[in-house]
Formats: sequence, C-alpha cells, structure tokens
Amino acid sequence: MAKIGVVGATGYAGAELVRLLSRHPQATLAVLTSQTYAGKAMGEVFPHLLGVVDHTLEELNVAELVDRCDVIFTALPHGHAMPMGQEVMRQGKRLIDLGADFRLKDVATYQHWYQTEHTASALVTKAVYGLPELYRKDIKNSVIVANPGCYPTSTILGLAPLLTNKLINLETIIVDAKSGVSGSGRGLSLKSHFTEITNNFQAYGVATHRHTPEIEQELSELAGVSVTVNFTPHLTPMIRGILCTSYAKMTSHMSSEQLTELYREFYQGEPFVRVLPVGIYPATKNVAGSNLCDLSVTVDPRTGRVIVLSAIDNLIKGAAGQAVQNLNLLLDIPENTGLDFAGMYP
Amino acid sequence: MAKIGVVGATGYAGAELVRLLSRHPQATLAVLTSQTYAGKAMGEVFPHLLGVVDHTLEELNVAELVDRCDVIFTALPHGHAMPMGQEVMRQGKRLIDLGADFRLKDVATYQHWYQTEHTASALVTKAVYGLPELYRKDIKNSVIVANPGCYPTSTILGLAPLLTNKLINLETIIVDAKSGVSGSGRGLSLKSHFTEITNNFQAYGVATHRHTPEIEQELSELAGVSVTVNFTPHLTPMIRGILCTSYAKMTSHMSSEQLTELYREFYQGEPFVRVLPVGIYPATKNVAGSNLCDLSVTVDPRTGRVIVLSAIDNLIKGAAGQAVQNLNLLLDIPENTGLDFAGMYP
Amino acid sequence: MAKIGVVGATGYAGAELVRLLSRHPQATLAVLTSQTYAGKAMGEVFPHLLGVVDHTLEELNVAELVDRCDVIFTALPHGHAMPMGQEVMRQGKRLIDLGADFRLKDVATYQHWYQTEHTASALVTKAVYGLPELYRKDIKNSVIVANPGCYPTSTILGLAPLLTNKLINLETIIVDAKSGVSGSGRGLSLKSHFTEITNNFQAYGVATHRHTPEIEQELSELAGVSVTVNFTPHLTPMIRGILCTSYAKMTSHMSSEQLTELYREFYQGEPFVRVLPVGIYPATKNVAGSNLCDLSVTVDPRTGRVIVLSAIDNLIKGAAGQAVQNLNLLLDIPENTGLDFAGMYP
Amino acid sequence: MAKIGVVGATGYAGAELVRLLSRHPQATLAVLTSQTYAGKAMGEVFPHLLGVVDHTLEELNVAELVDRCDVIFTALPHGHAMPMGQEVMRQGKRLIDLGADFRLKDVATYQHWYQTEHTASALVTKAVYGLPELYRKDIKNSVIVANPGCYPTSTILGLAPLLTNKLINLETIIVDAKSGVSGSGRGLSLKSHFTEITNNFQAYGVATHRHTPEIEQELSELAGVSVTVNFTPHLTPMIRGILCTSYAKMTSHMSSEQLTELYREFYQGEPFVRVLPVGIYPATKNVAGSNLCDLSVTVDPRTGRVIVLSAIDNLIKGAAGQAVQNLNLLLDIPENTGLDFAGMYP
Repeated sequence: MAKIGVVGATGYAGAELVRLLSRHPQATLAVLTSQTYAGKAMGEVFPHLLGVVDHTLEELNVAELVDRCDVIFTALPHGHAMPMGQEVMRQGKRLIDLGADFRLKDVATYQHWYQTEHTASALVTKAVYGLPELYRKDIKNSVIVANPGCYPTSTILGLAPLLTNKLINLETIIVDAKSGVSGSGRGLSLKSHFTEITNNFQAYGVATHRHTPEIEQELSELAGVSVTVNFTPHLTPMIRGILCTSYAKMTSHMSSEQLTELYREFYQGEPFVRVLPVGIYPATKNVAGSNLCDLSVTVDPRTGRVIVLSAIDNLIKGAAGQAVQNLNLLLDIPENTGLDFAGMYP
Repeated sequence: MAKIGVVGATGYAGAELVRLLSRHPQATLAVLTSQTYAGKAMGEVFPHLLGVVDHTLEELNVAELVDRCDVIFTALPHGHAMPMGQEVMRQGKRLIDLGADFRLKDVATYQHWYQTEHTASALVTKAVYGLPELYRKDIKNSVIVANPGCYPTSTILGLAPLLTNKLINLETIIVDAKSGVSGSGRGLSLKSHFTEITNNFQAYGVATHRHTPEIEQELSELAGVSVTVNFTPHLTPMIRGILCTSYAKMTSHMSSEQLTELYREFYQGEPFVRVLPVGIYPATKNVAGSNLCDLSVTVDPRTGRVIVLSAIDNLIKGAAGQAVQNLNLLLDIPENTGLDFAGMYP
Repeated sequence: MAKIGVVGATGYAGAELVRLLSRHPQATLAVLTSQTYAGKAMGEVFPHLLGVVDHTLEELNVAELVDRCDVIFTALPHGHAMPMGQEVMRQGKRLIDLGADFRLKDVATYQHWYQTEHTASALVTKAVYGLPELYRKDIKNSVIVANPGCYPTSTILGLAPLLTNKLINLETIIVDAKSGVSGSGRGLSLKSHFTEITNNFQAYGVATHRHTPEIEQELSELAGVSVTVNFTPHLTPMIRGILCTSYAKMTSHMSSEQLTELYREFYQGEPFVRVLPVGIYPATKNVAGSNLCDLSVTVDPRTGRVIVLSAIDNLIKGAAGQAVQNLNLLLDIPENTGLDFAGMYP
Repeated sequence: MAKIGVVGATGYAGAELVRLLSRHPQATLAVLTSQTYAGKAMGEVFPHLLGVVDHTLEELNVAELVDRCDVIFTALPHGHAMPMGQEVMRQGKRLIDLGADFRLKDVATYQHWYQTEHTASALVTKAVYGLPELYRKDIKNSVIVANPGCYPTSTILGLAPLLTNKLINLETIIVDAKSGVSGSGRGLSLKSHFTEITNNFQAYGVATHRHTPEIEQELSELAGVSVTVNFTPHLTPMIRGILCTSYAKMTSHMSSEQLTELYREFYQGEPFVRVLPVGIYPATKNVAGSNLCDLSVTVDPRTGRVIVLSAIDNLIKGAAGQAVQNLNLLLDIPENTGLDFAGMYP
C-alpha cells in the first residue's frame, strides 16, 4: 500500500482526490493538509465524506509530510508546488502536482503567463507531463508528474491524432472551450455566486487564458513545429464537465467516417478514451463522474474544416482522476485501478 | 455469482440498478429488458454505460427470464410486477420489486389508492417490506421483497425512533417532502421539461399522493396503532435527492441533544444512516450518489414540536441502492457489498 | 414626480427597486447609494442596467440624501434604517424600509431575535406594516412604512382569510417555506456558491429564523390573540421565488371548494392576489418577475387539516415590488402604477 | 390601435409575443390561435398570463383571421407561414413571420436545407429580412417581414461591422454558438428533459444546422461576395440566451480599442445594441428579459484573429422582441415602443 499525502485537500480537486483514493485498493491516505481548515475533520468540511474518510486536516509541514508519504499530490494554486518538488527530490519520494508549476518546459513562458518567478527551474526538465495517453512510459519512470490542466487534457486528446498524422493546417487551429463552474474552485467570487451564474453563459480570459501556452507546448510537440492557437474558455451554468469544440482546416480530403476510423486506431486499447460513431456527439453528462474522455470528429466538406468535440469531467479526467491514473503508472499497477467506475447519470 | 435480471432497465431506477450491479462483486447481469428500447445496446440508450455494460436490451419474456436468473429486479410502473411475482414463486427464484405492487399489506387499500386491481393478492402476505433498517431478518428469508418508495424510505427512517419510543402525539404528524425531478422518471412530460421546471418550485398531489398509505402502514406498524398523516410532496429544480421535513408534537420534554442521542442509539451500527449533530442539517447534495440517509432532529421548545429532517438520494437509497442492499441480504453477504462508495460532491 | 432615494442600491432588492423605479411614471431616481461601489456607475455594477439607469452610485450622507428626496427606500441589513428614520421624521419626508428595523411593534422582541439594540424605538409605533392587502389605509397616511419580509408576505397572505374568519385551531399552525437563493443576497458565502447550491436542497434556521416573530405578530393581530407557529425555511436551487406550504387543523367542516370561494371573496378586487381553482397549485415560476401572489387552499378530509400554498417572487412582491406598491399608496396614485407587468416565463 | 393576430400563441416565442404585445400601447391582441390548446384560455395554458391576457385560444382559420387583423404574426414551424403570406397579400394586410419560410431569398437553398417544398416562392422576393439594424427602411415599407432566426440575429449583428468595412478574410469565419434550452421550444423531447439537460453541455447539428444558409446569405450580402462559414450550435443548461463566439482572420492590423471604436460608430444611435468596453465581455444574463444585443470585440495579436462575442435573449431580440421592433417599424412609431424595459437580473 502506497502512503499518500494530499496537499490542499479541501479544494474541489483535492477533495475529489481524497474521495477517489479512499476507495483505491493500493493506496492509503496518510496525510491530508488544508490551510483554511487545519484541525477540522475532513468529514466536517465535506459532509459527503463523513464516515467515509476519518482524517483530521493538518497544517502543511513540507519536510515532515514528505517523510510520512510515498507519493505526494499537490492540489494547490500555481507557485506552491515548487518547494514540495525540491523536498520530494531530496527525500527520494514522488510528486504528482495538479497545479501548473511543472507543466511548462520553458521557464520564461511560465513566468510570462503566470507572472510568477519559478524557484525550482532545475526540476522542470525532470518533470513529465502527465497525460498517460501520450507519455505513459515516461510517467512510469518519473519522479515529478505535472498533471495536465483540465482544458489542455480535453483539447490535446481531441487534436492529437490530427497532429500526429499531419492532417491539418497548423495555422488554423481554434479551440472554443466550455467549462462547468467547479473549475473555478471553492473560493468565493461573484463569478461563482449561484444567482449570478445560474442561467448565464459567458466567455472569460479571451486570448489571455493561462492554459494557452500549455496547449501550444503539447500541440507543438506532437506537430514537431511550433503551433499557435486561439483558445477561448467559457463558463457554463453546470457543476462538472468540459466540452471543447476545436476547428482546423484539413490538408487532405477525408470523410468523417475515415477520420473516425483513424481516431479509433489511434486510441485503440486506451481504457479512458471513447471515440463515438459519426453523428453522435459527446455530452459532458455522459462522462461526468468518470475518468473518461469522449471524442467525435466531423468533417465539413463545405468548408474543408474538421470539427473535433471532446468532453471530460474536469474534476476527474481533468484533475483528480488523471492524477490517480498517473499514480497507477508510478506504482506499476493496472492503469484503471480505483478508476473503473461508470459516470453517474442523470 | 448470482445471476440477475433487471426488468425495465431503461428507466432511471433501472439504469441506476444496472450501473450499481455492473460493479457488484457477487452479482452478474444476466438479462436486461426494456419495452421501448429492446434490441438496442444499453450503452446506446445510456451513453454513460458505453463500454461499461455491453448487454443488448431484450423484450420481456417472463417465464424465460425467470429461468435464466436467480434474482429478478422489477423497475416498472405499478401493476406490472404481479405476474413476475407469480412466476418467481413457481420457479423458486427471488424477486425484488421496485414498484408498489407488493408494498401495501391491505389489498383494498392498494386498489383504492392505485385504482388498479391486484391480481396476485395471495403473494402480498409473503412479500416483505424491504427497509433493511427495520426488517433485516425478514428480508433475509423472503422470496419477494417489496422495495420501499423513495418518499416512504426517507420519511420512515426519519420518524421510526419517535414512534418506537412513543415520544409523539400520533395525530399531529405532518410530512412536507421535496424531491428532485429524476423521481418523475424518464417519460416525457411538461412536468419534467427543462424550461418549465428550472427555476421553479411547486407542490403536487396535495393530500392525494400514493405514497401516503405506504407511509401510514409503516408508521402504524411502528406505533402499534393506526396512524394518519398529512403528506405533501414538492418538485424541486434539481436532479437527485429527497428532503423530508416532518413535524409532530412531543409528548414529553426532551432537548434536541437528548433526542439526537436517542436517534444515535437507535441507528447504532447501521451502515447507511448518519445522525447529524444538533444544529447541522441534512442537505441532499451530501448524500447524492450514495446509499446514505442523513438525519437531524430539532426540538422547538416554543411550540413543543420536533422537526425531523431526512435526506436521501431518491435513485439510490430511495430505489436502486436499497434494492442492492436487499439483494445483499438475500445473498447473505455483507450489507454494503457494492455500495461502499461515497457520494459525488459537488 | 416624486424624487426617490435608494439606499443600498447594489444589493439584489435595491437593484430590483432601481429597475422598477426606472420605469415608474410618477417617480424619478434622485440618489442611489452603495457602500461597496460608491463612485461607480450603476450600469457598471449591474450591466443589465447599462444604458437604462445612468446614475453614479454615491456614499451615504443621511441628512443630505433626505434633503434631496421626497421618499427614501432603505434596502439595507437590519440595524441601518434607524438613523434614516429619525432624519426622515426631522425633515418631514417619508421612508419605506425594506429591512426589519420597523416591522416588530415590540422592541424587546426585536432586540431578542435580532440581537441588536433598537436606537429609534419611539418611531416604531409610528411605522405601519406595509402589507397593502391588510393595511392599505394606514399606509396611505404613514410616514414610515415597514416593508414586510419575503417569507412573512407569502405566509400572511396565505393564512389571513383563515384567521380573520376563525376557521383554524391556532395552536396547530406550521409553515414550511422554500426560497430561491436570491433571498440570501449578493454577499459571498459558501451558502450561495454555485457548485454547493446547484442540485442541493436543505433547511436552515430551523426553529430560529428571524421572520418567525414577524409572522407571529401579524397572525396574532389577525386572530386577536397571541399565536405561535413553527416556521422552517429551506433553500431551493433556483434564483427567485418563495413557496410556503402552511398547515393547520380546521375547526369546522368545509370543502376545498367552499374555502376557495371564501378566499376569492376575501381578496376580491386585489390587483396582486390570485386565488387558484381547486386542484391547481401555485408554482413560483408563474409569479416570477411579477408583483403577484398566487394562492391555493386544499382541505384534507382524512386529517381535517387545510394545506395552504402561496407563491411570490421574493424580490418583487417579497421586497422591491411591494415597496413600489407602498410608494403608490403614499403618493395616492393607482396601486399598480409601474407594476402592471406579467411575469417572465419560461 | 393595430389589431394583432398571433398564430401559434402557445409556443415559447408565441407566448412571449403575447406577453410583450399585452403591454404595447399601440397594439391590441385581436386573435390568438393554437393547434394544441384551442378552446382553452391563454391564462390556463400559461398561468403567468392569468388575469393579464383574457383571450381564449382559437383554431386557425386563415382567411377569417386575416380579415380580423391588421398585422399577423406567425410563430410556427417552417412550412406553415406560406398560405398565410398569400392570404395577407390578397387582403392587403401585413405579416411578420417568426419562422424560416421567407428568410432565404434563394428558394432552392430553402428547399435543400429545410427539405420542404416552397409553395409561395413568388412572395419570397417581396419579403424583407427583418433585422432593423441593417434593413430599417425596407422593413417600414414591407408587407411581409421575415423575422430573423435567433442564431443569425446574434451572429450577424456581431460580424456586420467587420464585413461592411472589409476587415477580415472571408474564408476564415467560424461561429461557435451556445443557446439556452427555450430555443428548443415547448415540444417534449429527451433533448429538453430536465434530468437529461441539467448539468449537461453538448453540440448538435454540427455542420448541418439550418441557420447556416441564413447566416451565409446575410454575411454575403454585407460582404458583396459569397461567404461560407462554419456554424456549430451548442445546447447550454439554461433557459434563455444565446452567446455567439465568432472568429476570423483580420486583414489589417487594428487593436481591440480601435475595433471597438469602429463598432461604436457602426451602431451609434441603435436603441438595442450595446458595444462593451475592451475587456468586458457579454453575458447572456445581462440581456435576458430585454431586447438588447451586447457585443464585444477582441483582437488577438498573437494569431491575428478577431474574437467577436455577441449575446441576446433568444426569445426577445432573437424572436418576439425583434418581431415587435419590426411591428413598430411597420406602424411608423418609435422603434422601442413597448420594448423599453431593462432585463431581469438576477
């Protein structure tokens, strides 16, 4: 049994991680920390876990926490995982960071988009981008896993087969993304106030969202050349789920059926990617509560564009579930351990 | 492994049962039937189960179905489980009926409230009311389990300690219940049309709802004398969950703390009932996705009334989860087998 | 044209008042104040009013504000309208307070339930409880109108005919109330955080809500003797609307039809009360966006109880709309001036 | 007072039209028809109008209806307004069609996308596309107004200044649209079943939606050459509102500020278009309940693309409100008559 520490256990991603790990057959929750709720019982802060998780939340003591754990998950705002990364290296443990600190390989890009100094840049090259469908082998052997952002997970899984197979004009990629409100976290804001958000739909961070360079890094890696995209996130009045609608010009003539077949082959054997039949589109509700990513591809012969739809649960495949998937790779156990549940519907 | 048949697998309760049973370690799904979708794959009708449940939906053939199964679940409107009950008796199998056909011990009462002739009245006395917290032993030895209604489950668990301990005036019981829309099922109606129900709250079936005699039967059983109640259901713009607010006059002076302690003792050891501390009230979201029932009791010294709050997930503890709990009793395995998951939050 | 001041214009009740008054043919918005947003344009804080209301929000200066206005509305938390009341008296203007400071005739009761010292107790006897359906004449001649709370408006309109006609046992009144989240205001709290409240239903303030003494005061006034009630508010995942389900034992035999007819007569000619036919129940969506109160009465012959359902828009008939109705009475103009619009559906 | 007929008064657009016209100072409702509810009172079918609109719904008799009215609104599915158009011409009355029958100038295009024969093709050339911001003068003198679709209204208002000023590459236009569920109408379907849609987000009609040719016709008209676009509609779990996110490559270097200024000039004096400051984005809730269209433009210098956001209430500016705006033009009265209300917030 791997001893697990969850740092930031009372954000939504952290709490979801605790829920998933509480039923994981090869992991045991050793330490849960919370800045806001230290000293309280987890089940008091999140009553759905009352009687399920009996831990008391602790203050974060980096060195001691790493000592008590085999694998540490950090579910914190960017900028807070760097010291943890250094301590994990020092003690020879392993880190799965759900934040952004180790995702961008170029420290200058990180510092530009996040407006934060990177204090552990030496570790960036050691970190592996934790998207198992693309980097499975590297993750197994890694010490620091940079768990991908929710939008990038959905976008990259949707576009990877096109880029790998060089099927699109790289200057024409547009990603129009829609997220549920849980992506904004548990911190209080008018932007997640019930009466303001219910029956409301709006864009935010137009042309400036911090997931843009992460998406571009990975698409560039797949394409072999530098790729720039338009990425526009929107806030949807629902709790969980991301749907990304991505557009690009095809460079060759293919039908929706041919492209769907190509996607099927690309993702063959993947436990968490489902390529839907032509004409059936992903819906966030079909993956909510699961670690699945649903994909569909449609070619519009009138414009020569492909429209890719990809849906995930932002808190599971977009955060905590993918982190557990990465844990399973680190532990060298079946990748769906503790994740083999269907979503909850309706 | 018990071979299971689910009759009516494409209603919400049926689909939830399929989801729960697909992960049950001691049960295997043998037959799924659907009147509307026979011939289609389950994962086509409910895409959240695509790749999780591979069964094709079948037409219902009563004799053949019973032959192929050890335990049959019927998730059908009232009136349709009676022939199944007879066939199950004939072949010596077992039935868990999620409908109303075997809940009311008095056939005349059934016929009055449901306006339906009872064609298997001989079986009614053999059926056990499937509320494990009250009838655990009887359920274990039963052939037909009448799985309780969603409102009765929540109401009875909330009031049982008061009646058993003779703490309230039996002529003063009022149950004001609120349910999510999944309780109305998947059948199309303006009463579950998104635009009509969102941002809307309303009562229905005032003084006439069919769960009233079921509640009264069980409260009378607990009290030892005939009890009549006011039961008013309301439709709440949410998917899952029931909250019942029950009122009664206390016949003795007790504080909220004393009464809470009495509830704790009453439900000691129960895996699925949580009695909350004084001043903490149940919220449907805390139990959604779980088989739990959360309870709180408050005594108002100004009026001498007790206010009981009880919350369940109507599709799980109020239907499919409780049915699996009953299955576990029939199979004589731990009662929380396949049900030991926390709810999903947020 | 009456010159109007709105103190606290950026809470939900205040902003709704501004919206209604911006189209009122006999009133002109003279001053809008906001503690949080002083200096900003109203349309910047509430973009739905951009181009509709051009005012800049001001700091509150009590004496100067009263000087610039004929009628002042205070839409502030309790405790803040008392100095305004005194200044209004001094300058001979008029005040409509949407808060609780002048609602309770008994200062000790106010101080007990609100845990706040009353610093303008001499004015309490001069204030009129602003429920036009009961106190129309007194309001016309008043200087300070205590605009009723949202729950009391709905409850009292629902029960008034029963009490006036002495049809119920006064010791049996139970009010089970359900409110949309806008009633919690625009202040940030986990209790109105989208992800926590969506798909959630819960009670709050059980046996302790501050609207209880207000309801009891008015029911006692109608009954002619002191009345105590159980009042339980619940939070519903919707924006606007209150539905109250009230129960009481009838003291005489009447049918639902007879009682409905009695209600029709009681409210005959009222522009904002609709008594629905037997078997048709109020829904909050039918009154949302309007100043209407919908009522239905059902007698349950099995228990001898009456169930009264009453629905309002908490921000309109429960706050800003009723305040405008009171303004119209003060100005001695038709009571529906500026309020003669249907609700918005769906 | 213009005598008005509303054909199809019990769909959402029809009912909204009835609500708006019931308060219009220059129009009087003469006839309301409904296929489903003929014989019932309007207030019985739509209780929010109980006591507001007293009309009984009638069966449709085309000739008689035209005879009794000055202006007829048809709020019917496509294919049903053609006979009405012919009768209106015969009797010399005027028609505002909220459906698609007279929107497309090319009959073959209509027949291709709608798979319906056009039986009144001679009238198509006489009809004017009812977008007042572009065709105000033509509408005033028209007999048949083809009221635009909801998506086209939002899209065209968002892109018109770019096309008129030849600022974008016409081969790069992508429109990613999101709509509330009221756009799907009141007809029952799993696609608008509460439990299926709540907490769900999905695309539909990918590359095949019927509003595509309507958008292309109008953009081509503005550009002076034929324009083809990608248009992808999505269903959002909210009641009212459309947000369109449109993308195109700029052909010249302009900043967001310069482009915003150009939009301000383009729409100067328009009563229902608001161009928001740079960095402030439209939200559907800010226009819900109003006839407004909110716009913002952002230039992304990294990609050379412009991102246009446009928001409307699909039932008002996208249907009934725009129809009233067109009525006002026909009657030669101020364009905002009966439409000068703010939206309802929250």
